[in-house]
Amino acid sequence: MKIEVLNTGSELLLGHVTNTHLTYLAQELFSFGLRVERQVTVPDGAAIRTALAEAVQRADLVIVTGGLGPTSDDITRDVAAELFQRTLIYHDTIYQKICAYLSTRHVIISDLNKNQAMVPEGALVLENDFGTAPGLIIEDGGKVVVLLPGPPRELKPMWKNKVEPWLRDKLAALKRPPVHERIWRIVAVGESRVQDMLEPVLKDLGEFEFGYCARAGEVDFRLITHDAAALDKAAVIIREKIGDAIYAEGTQSMESTVIMLATAKGLKIATAESCTGGFVAHRLTNVPGASAVIERGWVTYSNEAKSAELGVDAALIEEKGAVSREVAKAMAEGALATAKADVAVALTGIAGPDGGTPEKPVGTVWIAVATQGKVEAFRKIFSTDRETFKYMASQSALDAVRKVVIQMHK
Amino acid sequence: MKIEVLNTGSELLLGHVTNTHLTYLAQELFSFGLRVERQVTVPDGAAIRTALAEAVQRADLVIVTGGLGPTSDDITRDVAAELFQRTLIYHDTIYQKICAYLSTRHVIISDLNKNQAMVPEGALVLENDFGTAPGLIIEDGGKVVVLLPGPPRELKPMWKNKVEPWLRDKLAALKRPPVHERIWRIVAVGESRVQDMLEPVLKDLGEFEFGYCARAGEVDFRLITHDAAALDKAAVIIREKIGDAIYAEGTQSMESTVIMLATAKGLKIATAESCTGGFVAHRLTNVPGASAVIERGWVTYSNEAKSAELGVDAALIEEKGAVSREVAKAMAEGALATAKADVAVALTGIAGPDGGTPEKPVGTVWIAVATQGKVEAFRKIFSTDRETFKYMASQSALDAVRKVVIQMHK
Repeated sequence: MKIEVLNTGSELLLGHVTNTHLTYLAQELFSFGLRVERQVTVPDGAAIRTALAEAVQRADLVIVTGGLGPTSDDITRDVAAELFQRTLIYHDTIYQKICAYLSTRHVIISDLNKNQAMVPEGALVLENDFGTAPGLIIEDGGKVVVLLPGPPRELKPMWKNKVEPWLRDKLAALKRPPVHERIWRIVAVGESRVQDMLEPVLKDLGEFEFGYCARAGEVDFRLITHDAAALDKAAVIIREKIGDAIYAEGTQSMESTVIMLATAKGLKIATAESCTGGFVAHRLTNVPGASAVIERGWVTYSNEAKSAELGVDAALIEEKGAVSREVAKAMAEGALATAKADVAVALTGIAGPDGGTPEKPVGTVWIAVATQGKVEAFRKIFSTDRETFKYMASQSALDAVRKVVIQMHK
Repeated sequence: MKIEVLNTGSELLLGHVTNTHLTYLAQELFSFGLRVERQVTVPDGAAIRTALAEAVQRADLVIVTGGLGPTSDDITRDVAAELFQRTLIYHDTIYQKICAYLSTRHVIISDLNKNQAMVPEGALVLENDFGTAPGLIIEDGGKVVVLLPGPPRELKPMWKNKVEPWLRDKLAALKRPPVHERIWRIVAVGESRVQDMLEPVLKDLGEFEFGYCARAGEVDFRLITHDAAALDKAAVIIREKIGDAIYAEGTQSMESTVIMLATAKGLKIATAESCTGGFVAHRLTNVPGASAVIERGWVTYSNEAKSAELGVDAALIEEKGAVSREVAKAMAEGALATAKADVAVALTGIAGPDGGTPEKPVGTVWIAVATQGKVEAFRKIFSTDRETFKYMASQSALDAVRKVVIQMHK
């Protein structure tokens, strides 16, 4: 099946927004053993017409993002209807859904929104649970066009909940042999080291396609195969070789893993953050049900805050510096005691771009994890931009919490 | 001048790497008043040939990234030479540079590297100061192809130091009229409402291209024109019509706006978060220099934490509920007093997916902003997924802080 992705939106070609849709769709398609052969970006407006016609000529499946909004430059649906010679029909259910969506948000309904309820005759309509523009699937003469809304928070759930089930049926009907995929999320081991450790041994087990997706400080290792039994054997070997550097089998996030483990053991976690400025707490509280685990946390940016909120001795900060093993430990101990938590994690470091010294360069972070009667700290240096630093520091801290929680019994 | 970007690399179409080259090149080109009309991604190998030939047919300038490496699937240079019927010639200066580059890195020089020193006859060679593959500019019959290496750390300095000077001379020779662009970031007003309010009046001022980029709860409104005077007139009207719902003229983030305003006035901001779980503090501390404004913040998820950390009366929580105007106000007042801050913002709500009631559905949030002697609170309902809820609630809270800070004098 030849697949192309057509991204529409002047903002992409003006460099205002980076195209993350291709990344997302490519990964999702790959989990079905499918690959994107070409991707094209065109601005809003007339260029969509040419680009869509060309893509449909070349490919069997064309996924189009954007251009489904209510404004005049949103012409994707019209162009697709024209290409497949379908008239637009008013779809009352969709209009009612748009009205309901807008009215709960106290947004005034405009005539332009009525236009969004016009759909090409015979198209499969994908209701949008997170916005007004419905998605559409139009099939004709062996060609399929899938139209998805541009905003990622609308596109992603629509893909997962509406397009994937359709695609699964489609592939079953084509009698493609089923593809099995499994992913291991590995922290603090480099991509090439994972490759060296795994590929030679796994190649003896069967035919695999190997996939790697590296992010800051971690890598997803992915196996795709038609052989389910070989995949099970591979899983055993991967666990043996990589050990507890695997924080998830599947695409569960680090924070979900931590919340899941702590919830199962009935443990409370407290956070005390300087350089990460609330990011660790934010990530943990992104997980539904986090309130069973997270009761409170602090952002103690200043030295005064570290002393007043967490009881860190001002003399200790004076002597050792705010970014030090001792202060990280004292922050974790203070958070543990004050929150009456089972585990407390503390971070103190230099996010940059300013504030570094030769002994403590920008990117230095001390991370401490305290439990009743015990506290341990370690140092990392992530020499990168401010936001990546915060991500890597938070990931390292959550991983340390994960390893401590695994060992705990309450 | 019609411009296209052709990105080559299988990793882009497998979703392993997000294409940031387009974002970078588009921004750099726009600073010359130039726009990318189309962008295409193809995998390494033969697809580059077709895609480059098509792009050269349509565009005057084609910028190609990647495929200049030493391995067999790196065919960009060969394909370009073939297209312009140029033979490849050995370039000794380039070879010496590659050898010098590799030997300082203790990398063994392979025959494949010699191949990288072969350049199309008559091409302008762009030396690579950060890698082995030279860039190339080939001009013929009014068409230009610029070949750049794939790694961003090689591409960006080559663009800045080698391509930009060439482009500046090229444009000076063409005597092109300049293009002007301006962006307004607007919060809490829908895309279609912005269009209704602005397009009819702006159309009377001159020839504009209108652009919209909607995100959760906000929209970027963009004007592009050749007429700088009309743009200035438009700016006045936009400010009149949209007022303080504009949080930035340009692409500055909400959190940067807040930190910038507070820094200029010497104000300290404290955060007290329940449902956003540290996200407001995280966003503010993403801004370099935030430590001048953010001294401390709290994540008070539980009722006990709200009382213990912020001094919220437990009886008030009991009577009004944790998600209430009164508790939001008490949280903000407590944070203001404890942190000795000038402004404190508090959020308490129901992020979901569970925990809603008919009176307080999932997505309800109370936001309070306190200053010395004054506290105000308002309610919003963002019925969406948990992470988007946190984003929209944080955006709403930061916007409220922004409006308060604008009015303050210290």
